[in-house]
Amino acid sequence: MSEKISFFMKKYQERIEELLLAVFPEELAEDPTVKAAMYSLLAGGKRIRPVLMYMVADMLHLDLSVVDDFAVSMEMVHTYSLIHDDLPCMDDDCLRRGKPTCHIAHGEAFALLAGDALLNRAFERVLTAVSKNAKTASAASYFAENTGILGMIGGQSIDLSSEGKKIDTGRLCELHEKKTGALINASCLIPYLIYAAENGEDRKLYDLIHRFSAGTGLGFQIKDDLLDVQADEQVLGKSTGKDERDSKSTFVTVFGEKSAQKMLDDTYADVYDALDELSSLGWDVTALRQFSDVLQNRVQ
Amino acid sequence: MSEKISFFMKKYQERIEELLLAVFPEELAEDPTVKAAMYSLLAGGKRIRPVLMYMVADMLHLDLSVVDDFAVSMEMVHTYSLIHDDLPCMDDDCLRRGKPTCHIAHGEAFALLAGDALLNRAFERVLTAVSKNAKTASAASYFAENTGILGMIGGQSIDLSSEGKKIDTGRLCELHEKKTGALINASCLIPYLIYAAENGEDRKLYDLIHRFSAGTGLGFQIKDDLLDVQADEQVLGKSTGKDERDSKSTFVTVFGEKSAQKMLDDTYADVYDALDELSSLGWDVTALRQFSDVLQNRVQ
Repeated sequence: MSEKISFFMKKYQERIEELLLAVFPEELAEDPTVKAAMYSLLAGGKRIRPVLMYMVADMLHLDLSVVDDFAVSMEMVHTYSLIHDDLPCMDDDCLRRGKPTCHIAHGEAFALLAGDALLNRAFERVLTAVSKNAKTASAASYFAENTGILGMIGGQSIDLSSEGKKIDTGRLCELHEKKTGALINASCLIPYLIYAAENGEDRKLYDLIHRFSAGTGLGFQIKDDLLDVQADEQVLGKSTGKDERDSKSTFVTVFGEKSAQKMLDDTYADVYDALDELSSLGWDVTALRQFSDVLQNRVQ
Repeated sequence: MSEKISFFMKKYQERIEELLLAVFPEELAEDPTVKAAMYSLLAGGKRIRPVLMYMVADMLHLDLSVVDDFAVSMEMVHTYSLIHDDLPCMDDDCLRRGKPTCHIAHGEAFALLAGDALLNRAFERVLTAVSKNAKTASAASYFAENTGILGMIGGQSIDLSSEGKKIDTGRLCELHEKKTGALINASCLIPYLIYAAENGEDRKLYDLIHRFSAGTGLGFQIKDDLLDVQADEQVLGKSTGKDERDSKSTFVTVFGEKSAQKMLDDTYADVYDALDELSSLGWDVTALRQFSDVLQNRVQ
């Protein structure tokens, strides 16, 4: 990782880590649900969604404080989804980010409640953002749509109902567009929606950010599926080879490793293309380009 | 139940039932998560929270359509909390409202997702309300606070961590103020907050509605605890005698049945007192008074 991108990521990661420390009121620090939630929230996630959100916000010359509430909420939603996904009745995973999953460390009941508490708290923050700045209202609605049944939860539902079944390419893409893509997409487009509320709509700009975010979401999932068969469990920090064992429909189990690798390369070609177009319009995409390189070549 | 109150309740119940039918987009009707959510949402709940919300809104001469989104969201949050509460890792209940619980009928994984989907969708609706009418912003924040770790989830967390332990009266009251009280309280105060945003604050009015809602919330829980030992399982529609078996701290297990009955009577004396004061200020509390009578004397 180049020093420059490392500097770029660090700035955003430090910002989000500090905000995450304060998501629950201090007087609740000893509450077992809060403890379980904080255990997972601070378990060393890569903060990809907040980092993307901050990078797009910076590109659009927004004050980062305008997206802080959304960045925090996005990471809280991502974390709750992992906690619930890891539960025995779902993926039944014991290892996450190299540590015992929430229900292993805090018990199933508190893990369940911790997930609920994180989702609810995320919306408390989103509503705070709207109260502070009415121009974030459409970003808030977009957030909610992408985290719910029309977005991430909808994707999990398709995923769960497809286990052990053959699904076609269209359904596989819909699954991942929703399950992984929705949060990544919202992370990139929330800054645009706030920008548009302040400066008026810019269709071309929207289209390019959307192309970038769609490719980034799809690429993220293909890479995840590839890592499930290629990565070292120790480095990855979670169990590998599970997709095949669980009869999951992934880009690797459906198309094979070689085709999935080709799809990843094509997807990233499009991501870089969208960034080039943004650059030609005068937007500084240096950080986003370097971050894309990091995501494409990650080993965990 | 007198015919008059029956008419009053019916009007609101029919309004909420119709709205609940349409909480998810029609194209998702076949999604298994949506099916599980709708199974529980339409399982014949008494709609106490929406009815209270509508009654207070009517008393305050609000257009009922202004609170519709909140009434629907409140019932969705209540339903999700029941679905998650009934899961094996929580209360492990098989019977709810006289029917198999959600996870018995739809499996644990979809029950979990259905709960998540209902919570998320509730906030989608709350954000829609704020988009339509900026004057509902503080009601929206109040909603979120009462459903989360500072409200209902916080109460569930105390409940769960108190199982099998002796807790003092203060802690028992905090538990129930949050676990049951928070949603009932918010149901009554959301119409006030919208009223206040439109007409200016009225401290006396706030205090009286708050006294009414606090008593109604407390009374509801004491009655629930009494029904656990007094009711017919067939009529109640859920398992009885569970509190003792599960070593739960309830008003009955802590104070005994006789004292709990006395507390219920005292609490309702205060509820009627608050209603009398509202009435003397010129507000029409006919429906609320009759509904309180129904709640105090319910058998399920």
